[in-house]
Amino acid sequence: MIRTLKVILEYDGTQFRGWQSQSGNQRTVQSEVRSSLEKFLHEKITLIGSGRTDSGVHARGQVAHFKTKSQIPVEKMLRALNAHLPVDITALSLEAVHDDFHAQYSVKSKRYRYVILNRSEKPALDRNYCLHFAYPLNVPLMRREAQVLVGKKDFKSFQATDHKRSEGARGTVRCIKYLSVTKSGEYIYIDVEADGFLYKMVRNIVGTLLEIGSGKLPPGSMKDILLKCSRCSAGDTVEPQGLFLMEVHY
Amino acid sequence: MIRTLKVILEYDGTQFRGWQSQSGNQRTVQSEVRSSLEKFLHEKITLIGSGRTDSGVHARGQVAHFKTKSQIPVEKMLRALNAHLPVDITALSLEAVHDDFHAQYSVKSKRYRYVILNRSEKPALDRNYCLHFAYPLNVPLMRREAQVLVGKKDFKSFQATDHKRSEGARGTVRCIKYLSVTKSGEYIYIDVEADGFLYKMVRNIVGTLLEIGSGKLPPGSMKDILLKCSRCSAGDTVEPQGLFLMEVHY
Repeated sequence: MIRTLKVILEYDGTQFRGWQSQSGNQRTVQSEVRSSLEKFLHEKITLIGSGRTDSGVHARGQVAHFKTKSQIPVEKMLRALNAHLPVDITALSLEAVHDDFHAQYSVKSKRYRYVILNRSEKPALDRNYCLHFAYPLNVPLMRREAQVLVGKKDFKSFQATDHKRSEGARGTVRCIKYLSVTKSGEYIYIDVEADGFLYKMVRNIVGTLLEIGSGKLPPGSMKDILLKCSRCSAGDTVEPQGLFLMEVHY
Repeated sequence: MIRTLKVILEYDGTQFRGWQSQSGNQRTVQSEVRSSLEKFLHEKITLIGSGRTDSGVHARGQVAHFKTKSQIPVEKMLRALNAHLPVDITALSLEAVHDDFHAQYSVKSKRYRYVILNRSEKPALDRNYCLHFAYPLNVPLMRREAQVLVGKKDFKSFQATDHKRSEGARGTVRCIKYLSVTKSGEYIYIDVEADGFLYKMVRNIVGTLLEIGSGKLPPGSMKDILLKCSRCSAGDTVEPQGLFLMEVHY
């Protein structure tokens, strides 16, 4: 009997060329997990993730699925998988799911967090886990402008121009459930949940919020940028190391 | 005119053999900061820290002082220092202080934080910045037992047996101002402030709290351990990578 298994993964993206296996010899999360599974399952595994994460992007709750002939109990398989994975990937859970479960196509929503260290000096600790922003930020203004993006909207202005994916029938329309901006000491957290994200959409939204918060763009800009449906109206793409895929909901 | 300068340092202890310069060629925080200063001050610098931190221990607010003939304004010197420091050390501030200021002897109190990740699977993210503890912990019990240690006490039971330092006139008596145990999701934070710490005292206190919290030692043990004034009565020394020197007060 072939089983479909769902795995939740945490990884430190620092030393990876992102999630997706490449044609070359580059180290990716997908290929590390797949080869770890193949080592003890002794069969060829196809591993499908909820979506790609770029080089340097981290995950606290990436989800993937695979099919296997193995009847090893999931608890035991989880221990075996973690024993084979490198130190920068951990499988948090493994469960048998219905055979029509698909880690990518069954996604209902995803939650990302972007972490900013807002102080004059660069980070020594956390240097691979946040964006350093040295200039003062108006956090209440960023919070207000962020609300413009909540709901079902056309996010074309926040889609990377180097995207290679076809976005399918829904085009560039997505629904953001919430987009919060919170401050804790020198750290600012931007949390966003949506039914889907265009390529580099979170990093482009964060870049735009930073330009508004630092006064480079005037208050009220977010509404105009959204309506223009043009990438060049929005802010720069921020660096990947501040981004964490937190949760995928099915 | 010779000035005395006080510097506050953040560092990621992962790639250091601790604070203190060694006789060999080992990479230490003290030697990296000193050589960075010497590079642009063009004079021999003696750098004195508030105290040592061990290999793998981090700092968000270590303090050190040095004397210099240079009259470069402190703002400019801070930028020069950060330009010369490696990526895992940042100088957060630099200020001129009275010439009798001494980073070690003028200390009034220090605050440390110890970070525990309490879940079954090992961390991929944060793996160099926390202790992984896989078994259930009774946090309210740990919190109550911790209170036994607050105040002026003889902490001989928590002093590492391999200490090489003479503890001076006050012997093994120290005053803990507070010792808190807080839980946030899967993380547990142990924060402790005292007028001084014996060698490995924080890591030995945390080790003992973990043995009590996991049921290896019975409730009420902390009082007995403290009174015994014997290292072998207390718990094991926990790993260094969960420990952060947060602040030094003068």
